[in-house]
Amino acid sequence: MMEQPVGARRASIGARRNPASEKAILDAAAAILAEGGLSGFSIEAVARRARAGKPTIYRWWPNRTALLLDVYHRSKHVIPDPDTGTLEGDARMFLTNLLDFWNDPANGTVFRSIIAEAQSNADAMAALQAYLDDRHAYLAGIIDRARARGEVRADLDSTALGEWLVSFAWHRLLTDRIETSPAEIETVIKTFAAGAAPTSK
Amino acid sequence: MMEQPVGARRASIGARRNPASEKAILDAAAAILAEGGLSGFSIEAVARRARAGKPTIYRWWPNRTALLLDVYHRSKHVIPDPDTGTLEGDARMFLTNLLDFWNDPANGTVFRSIIAEAQSNADAMAALQAYLDDRHAYLAGIIDRARARGEVRADLDSTALGEWLVSFAWHRLLTDRIETSPAEIETVIKTFAAGAAPTSK
Repeated sequence: MMEQPVGARRASIGARRNPASEKAILDAAAAILAEGGLSGFSIEAVARRARAGKPTIYRWWPNRTALLLDVYHRSKHVIPDPDTGTLEGDARMFLTNLLDFWNDPANGTVFRSIIAEAQSNADAMAALQAYLDDRHAYLAGIIDRARARGEVRADLDSTALGEWLVSFAWHRLLTDRIETSPAEIETVIKTFAAGAAPTSK
Repeated sequence: MMEQPVGARRASIGARRNPASEKAILDAAAAILAEGGLSGFSIEAVARRARAGKPTIYRWWPNRTALLLDVYHRSKHVIPDPDTGTLEGDARMFLTNLLDFWNDPANGTVFRSIIAEAQSNADAMAALQAYLDDRHAYLAGIIDRARARGEVRADLDSTALGEWLVSFAWHRLLTDRIETSPAEIETVIKTFAAGAAPTSK
């Protein structure tokens, strides 16, 4: 599994969730998204379908984007955790899996729309930032493992390194060029791993 | 100057432009943007203010986003060309200048809105991609200069390297964290230059 389940991951945000209700709400939200796309996705529609109260949903997800991000994130659970034993291998696996995941429009389109929405909606931006804080901590963990193996120079910050690695994937997604060539991936991965290494100048 | 003037840069796109008319249209577009922001920015409003025909504008800019990108790009003319003599120095200057430029909301907000618009509008995406092809060629040129000095490993692609460098800035802009610490910049720059170097493993 790529990381902790959604409930555990977001436990620090908002009230404690009832696992069965949470699952019903996320299932309803995912079904609405699959059937009608983003335009039909609202807290109201999810509440109706999940037979949950809107206050319950708002207690756990402060806005539509926060709920959308959890639905999006949950569909990522099939992505294996990269643990190949080298930073270059982990980075290659991470980037390749992320781009593959986004290559399915059901995933890529949702994430693009969240980013777009966040550019003019402060609530959406807050939800996106909370999600990314979590993702960046996860990536920093991969880099910390490499650091423990002696693959990362002491003066380089794990969070900044991880953020930079994922930025390339964002750029591809947001410029509609998600079908990245293996050579392009290799340029990024090799430069990244060699640049982070203590043996570099 | 950071690069060629707008007219020369886009000469291959659309019909040949009359420099005086082009300047009048871009001046009008910039004034509308400065006074009323994005919501008041339209081809119609620009045509009225520049006393130009809408067909003239559409001949040179196929859509609102293409015109917006040229206005945006023209305000970048004050950014000096990075030519410090090292890849690390050039990359640092490029990234710092770009983030500084976007830190002025007049610039950052416009570019964010263009990216957001492109996520759901194919014309806006086409205009953005044409603009970026040009920017990536410019960045590849900086990296080719470093390559000629022996600072870049032979198997790394200049365009992919340049795109990756700028991706970090995009990620910061789009997550509303444009105020980057010097340490974060250094992590990216040092990793980049060391990773691109032929002496790396």
